[in-house]
Amino acid sequence: MVTGGLGFIGSALSRRLVELGADVLIVDRLADGSGANRFNIAGIENRVTVEERDVRDETAMRGLLPDCRYLFNLAAQTGHLESMRDPLADLEVNARASASLLEACRAVAPEISVAFAGTRQVYGRPERLPVDETHPVRPVDVNGINKTAGEAYHLLYAHVYGMRACSLRLTNTYGPRMRIKDNRQTFVGVWLRAVLEERPFEVWEGTQKRDFTYVDDAAEAFLLAAATPEAKGGAFNIGGHGPVSLDALAETLARANGGADWERREFPAERKRIDIGDYWADDSLFRRVTGWAPRVGLEEGLRRSLDYFRTNFAHYV
Amino acid sequence: MVTGGLGFIGSALSRRLVELGADVLIVDRLADGSGANRFNIAGIENRVTVEERDVRDETAMRGLLPDCRYLFNLAAQTGHLESMRDPLADLEVNARASASLLEACRAVAPEISVAFAGTRQVYGRPERLPVDETHPVRPVDVNGINKTAGEAYHLLYAHVYGMRACSLRLTNTYGPRMRIKDNRQTFVGVWLRAVLEERPFEVWEGTQKRDFTYVDDAAEAFLLAAATPEAKGGAFNIGGHGPVSLDALAETLARANGGADWERREFPAERKRIDIGDYWADDSLFRRVTGWAPRVGLEEGLRRSLDYFRTNFAHYV
Repeated sequence: MVTGGLGFIGSALSRRLVELGADVLIVDRLADGSGANRFNIAGIENRVTVEERDVRDETAMRGLLPDCRYLFNLAAQTGHLESMRDPLADLEVNARASASLLEACRAVAPEISVAFAGTRQVYGRPERLPVDETHPVRPVDVNGINKTAGEAYHLLYAHVYGMRACSLRLTNTYGPRMRIKDNRQTFVGVWLRAVLEERPFEVWEGTQKRDFTYVDDAAEAFLLAAATPEAKGGAFNIGGHGPVSLDALAETLARANGGADWERREFPAERKRIDIGDYWADDSLFRRVTGWAPRVGLEEGLRRSLDYFRTNFAHYV
Repeated sequence: MVTGGLGFIGSALSRRLVELGADVLIVDRLADGSGANRFNIAGIENRVTVEERDVRDETAMRGLLPDCRYLFNLAAQTGHLESMRDPLADLEVNARASASLLEACRAVAPEISVAFAGTRQVYGRPERLPVDETHPVRPVDVNGINKTAGEAYHLLYAHVYGMRACSLRLTNTYGPRMRIKDNRQTFVGVWLRAVLEERPFEVWEGTQKRDFTYVDDAAEAFLLAAATPEAKGGAFNIGGHGPVSLDALAETLARANGGADWERREFPAERKRIDIGDYWADDSLFRRVTGWAPRVGLEEGLRRSLDYFRTNFAHYV
């Protein structure tokens, strides 16, 4: 089962699972503002089952889960500003849904292996860099608070009930099929769209550093997390190839596109007050436990993204 | 406004506020299994207003909050095992209710001063003792996860919106008007009841150490937290007079009663797996910021508790 399987990372994971010969059950409620997009499974739509349902529908989940060996729990609300505007909606999707789903697992599928899509957002503003998993958990927005709770339930069910559950604390993930309509799946989506529309994109400040994971590398991380018994009960950072300033990312994107323009801007005030500043992950723990390593470099990943959206632009705007 | 004002600590606080001449509005939904008890306000019932409502009723709260200068946010589900049995109910009361209430404050009472009843449970199993506020937040039960989220919203609203909100991380609070029917408000309630019924009480293991706050000292802490501008945005431990083993507590209780019997037992398995082990607070930060100090010693506090319940036993069982 892949919750949020019509979304950006969820569909990449579902595609990979289909390639590997798995029976894939996608649960997705196609929420407004989410990354869900039926076009994301174009080409595999006849090889997956799609249940258009809310994961909070515990009765439905209790019917579906007993047939599943792995649960990739990716359904989420990802917008930071959106979480501040509607904290209760964010809580429902990012905290309550996981509590409900785990209760269903405990009741009808206690042997299932669960990998949860956590986030670097749990750390808040880093007090040291790179950030490893011993860094204090101190989220600075509603989304971070609710994702912290959602993750904590998973780890708790592993520790208390022996359930095989773990969490991947994702950083900026980018690639084909991401949401490019707006910045709900990071600013990279908006940048890609502007480049494809031949408009200058906006670089806020520019010196800030982040790390980036190509979506297929993130999908591989989920597979390894769910398949590695030693990952049970752990929360693991997922990073990329090290820190990149936004200025450097802009240059790399322009290079991947064979040229592009951008403009420097100040950080908007309402974003600034929930912004986490520089972040990059120390993901050596996950690499050690599972053997994972990112394979796709930044320029190559951006090139693949541009190629994909160039061909399929109309399905994403 | 005192949410949970018919409860154990909420009613002590309301009584003290009445003494100080405040206009007190109690909001309490008299939830089953909570500490709410109409008898807790016996003697002040004509000097307070009671709204029997759910704090999640945002429309009602928006009507009531503009008249309030202070919000003591104590409404909670306190049972640890209960939170494991019904995680979603715990989430509603301990996380969602605070998000909802803070949104109402932001909309209609942005100048209000808010003091939240947090808990030592956010720390999980202490990795060092005494525990100060820099200790990692790593709750080990559903109640701890949801209270962590509830507290985090308060601190976030202080940091992001400049709201005057803080949290008190309470430890074992005991005293008159606590719930003695069961152990939802710590095991001390069950011990008191057994002593009053002249039955032996059960001491699980006995060597475990905890600290204890007399309820009037806790009420005073809430008053100081809400009235001290420097407390804004902080999470503060509240402790007592230092660590006491359960064996020593049993002896003190027997002394306070002029004799009592108890039995040693093993920890029940379902409790053991969510138990936090030894805990005592370093509460020097709160003492420094507000000038607070506990006034009532353990034996005196237990004596007052026994006296109260001896007279009013029928209202609590």
